[in-house]
Amino acid sequence: MARVDFSSLTLSRTRSAALYQQLTEALAESIRRGDLPPGTRLLPERQLAGQLGVSRTTIINAYRELEARGFVRGQVGRGTYVCANPDVADAPLAWRSKLAYGAHAPVDPAVEGLMRAAARPDVISFAVGSPALDGFPAEQFQLFLAEAALRQPAAVFGHGPTEGQPALRQAIGARYRIAPDQVMVLSGSLQGLDLLAKCFLERGDTVVVDRPGNRSALQAFGAAGVRLVGWDIARADFEELEDIFLRYRPKLLYTNPAYQNPTGATLSIAQRRDLIELAARYRVPIVEDDAYRELGFRGSPPPPLYQLDEHSVVIYLNTFSKMLAPGLRVGWLAAPRALIRQLAQIKLRSDMHTANLMQLALAEFVTSGGLDRHLVWLRAEHARRLDVMTASLTACLPPAALTFRVPEGGIFLWCRLGFAIETARLLDRATAAGVLFAGANLFYSDGSGLNELRLCFAAQPPEVIREGVERLGAAVAAELSAPRTGGDDYRPIV
Amino acid sequence: MARVDFSSLTLSRTRSAALYQQLTEALAESIRRGDLPPGTRLLPERQLAGQLGVSRTTIINAYRELEARGFVRGQVGRGTYVCANPDVADAPLAWRSKLAYGAHAPVDPAVEGLMRAAARPDVISFAVGSPALDGFPAEQFQLFLAEAALRQPAAVFGHGPTEGQPALRQAIGARYRIAPDQVMVLSGSLQGLDLLAKCFLERGDTVVVDRPGNRSALQAFGAAGVRLVGWDIARADFEELEDIFLRYRPKLLYTNPAYQNPTGATLSIAQRRDLIELAARYRVPIVEDDAYRELGFRGSPPPPLYQLDEHSVVIYLNTFSKMLAPGLRVGWLAAPRALIRQLAQIKLRSDMHTANLMQLALAEFVTSGGLDRHLVWLRAEHARRLDVMTASLTACLPPAALTFRVPEGGIFLWCRLGFAIETARLLDRATAAGVLFAGANLFYSDGSGLNELRLCFAAQPPEVIREGVERLGAAVAAELSAPRTGGDDYRPIV
Repeated sequence: MARVDFSSLTLSRTRSAALYQQLTEALAESIRRGDLPPGTRLLPERQLAGQLGVSRTTIINAYRELEARGFVRGQVGRGTYVCANPDVADAPLAWRSKLAYGAHAPVDPAVEGLMRAAARPDVISFAVGSPALDGFPAEQFQLFLAEAALRQPAAVFGHGPTEGQPALRQAIGARYRIAPDQVMVLSGSLQGLDLLAKCFLERGDTVVVDRPGNRSALQAFGAAGVRLVGWDIARADFEELEDIFLRYRPKLLYTNPAYQNPTGATLSIAQRRDLIELAARYRVPIVEDDAYRELGFRGSPPPPLYQLDEHSVVIYLNTFSKMLAPGLRVGWLAAPRALIRQLAQIKLRSDMHTANLMQLALAEFVTSGGLDRHLVWLRAEHARRLDVMTASLTACLPPAALTFRVPEGGIFLWCRLGFAIETARLLDRATAAGVLFAGANLFYSDGSGLNELRLCFAAQPPEVIREGVERLGAAVAAELSAPRTGGDDYRPIV
Repeated sequence: MARVDFSSLTLSRTRSAALYQQLTEALAESIRRGDLPPGTRLLPERQLAGQLGVSRTTIINAYRELEARGFVRGQVGRGTYVCANPDVADAPLAWRSKLAYGAHAPVDPAVEGLMRAAARPDVISFAVGSPALDGFPAEQFQLFLAEAALRQPAAVFGHGPTEGQPALRQAIGARYRIAPDQVMVLSGSLQGLDLLAKCFLERGDTVVVDRPGNRSALQAFGAAGVRLVGWDIARADFEELEDIFLRYRPKLLYTNPAYQNPTGATLSIAQRRDLIELAARYRVPIVEDDAYRELGFRGSPPPPLYQLDEHSVVIYLNTFSKMLAPGLRVGWLAAPRALIRQLAQIKLRSDMHTANLMQLALAEFVTSGGLDRHLVWLRAEHARRLDVMTASLTACLPPAALTFRVPEGGIFLWCRLGFAIETARLLDRATAAGVLFAGANLFYSDGSGLNELRLCFAAQPPEVIREGVERLGAAVAAELSAPRTGGDDYRPIV
């Protein structure tokens, strides 16, 4: 309130507008001009009344009017705050003035642009993270769906247990060597992050995340209003991690230690042991997101942190989205029983339980060996697509314009642009040329990654990959021959 | 901290235990005894150090040790707080000390007891709210599932739009006369409450709810840490509601205005108009949960608030759970477009999107007329079951032991016990006799409802209803012949 100059505010008792209306206009104008930025707390009513020499009712009426017009939001016992954005053309009730603090997390225009472009039929997208879906055994899977719907109608159509269908918890437990009652089924692994945020995090807490890291995780934790501190698992510097633990006392560490999204990096078994020891010593729970574990081209990554853990410091997350299909929306987590009970209470209040039919069909699909058979095909096909993509990149792009390390699994190729090409500018050109990628800024919580990008090599068939990389090559060539920001030409750095 | 008597704490520099260990033990003992109840803020380190005449390091070490043992939770910049329950036998890392404030909402033992009992095969449950599922057209529905899986594999198995499948948004829009882009598909209507809570509510806000009201809503809002203020829609006293608006400045009003859960009450069209006018005047958004609209026995309830609303003050929620099957987990909401965009961002971070297959099958089921045909059967069957239940209650229970008003729709019979029989005591007897109901305390946020209960008449077939009511009658008879709390016999009130 300090920044509002009330000396210039003459509340006139002779002007036709009531005092409260004059005050309302003056405050509205200050908010519009930005003198009172969003989040500013207005002076308490009594105090402002004293300062201006008017009655408290005048102030109350002015604050109510500002609230009604969407400029401020009053909270009983906590004062009146300036809202983030008073303009919502579409909403007569000034809905925005009602929004909670956390909901103001803005709609990301870069992502909306990506999604709009991805809906164009002529566009080839390497941006979305999806496995090869063209080989999904839809007919076989459909039989499992039909069998569940016809043979177990009560289980399919009635309410199910919040922790998940027993058949699926058992199938997952058997496949991943976890006690079934330590498994909880999720409506996608992203829901696990939402439940964990509700369970562990308060606004202002700190969470350690991979840097760069899974965008969905950054968003889910970010929506909880926490501070995100990045740790680079590709470098895996444990002194740095200890510094972070000491400095920020984080509430959780989130990592994706096998074929990481976006870099493809994998923690070695020694690094896994070090990470667990350090987290146990500082009592920082680890959330291990193991979505890409089954997608190694040659052999498997080291055992999950969850299995190496002797301190009960690891919560395990996994999903059928990357090894089968994201549209199924089924994931799971594993954790100590006391925590499963707590998380089930939170899930009960979030979406009651995950749809039964998909759970029952998946349970059969897993136990019948359908998943294993599919994975054999998927790994080979992904390896082939990766080869096609790397060969095309080498063929279509100028030498040193884009560099990468070939990953040993997963679905992403993490690339660095040469000649200081800026990812954002290239994305504009690429979108115009009909090809999309994920700019690296999506994977950093601090706006880094100006010259990096992520390509998903798994989702498109080989001939589409070739065509998409050709378009990307054209976009790179166009960018290299264009004037740079600041007017300089690109100068290949030798 | 005031209640800890440090005068009796002699920190001895000669005892073998370090000073910080002595302090740790003293504080741990105070927490165990309850002298420091959960939520108490410990004195700042520097202040306690000064008070006890020890170094700040001693205090820091003691607080860290207490945190490690799960007694307290430290928050950077906000101090150190006593945790809710330091005993978690199963969790070596003392997970509980990490839990966020909101997650401490306790597991409700009454509900866990109900759920345990409901799993017994010999038990007849009138507790769970479910429509008749035995007439669910599983074979027909399965054909729609198969058709979607085989004909639209890319839409089924790939990522879908967060707002929902266009086909389902259109089908819902056409059926309920809402623009499809103002419809958003939900993973059950309960998810709508979770999203709305994330969007609108901050801890300490007030929400007006029906009194008694839908338990799931009370829980979803309660988990957001808000104060719930009840308003009785059966009485529909608008002066009382205006008083509530004036006194609490609520952020939302949640209501269930057609065949309400649990009472079966329905707001008249005049009451609906009054409610909208009042909410618009005080700018309190209404969340209209219309889950039972289609389940009227004779005709329909008055139009939804959403359709009567000319102020954009109503958010509309509905679900396929009550008119089709709860296990499908598909609901929807309707709201102004600006709000749909905001809520979609929140859903994107909560569960990405609802499973595609179920959405596509439901779209076909609705547009092909399958839902309408099913509703014809469902209404008639529910009416028949209600008749069976009311006739059985009259036949099996002593006169005036249990009274009710026959509802005109929905799935619930709201009952009042006579002779001051206590619902909780009767539930114990009923559970032992093999029949379950929902005690009224579940539907009040303030612990009222000592002599009321809710019976779901829709879920069980007629012969099971008769058997269940016989068991209930036996439980009532046993309770009436038992000594009352306090030792008095039941005395029929004439």
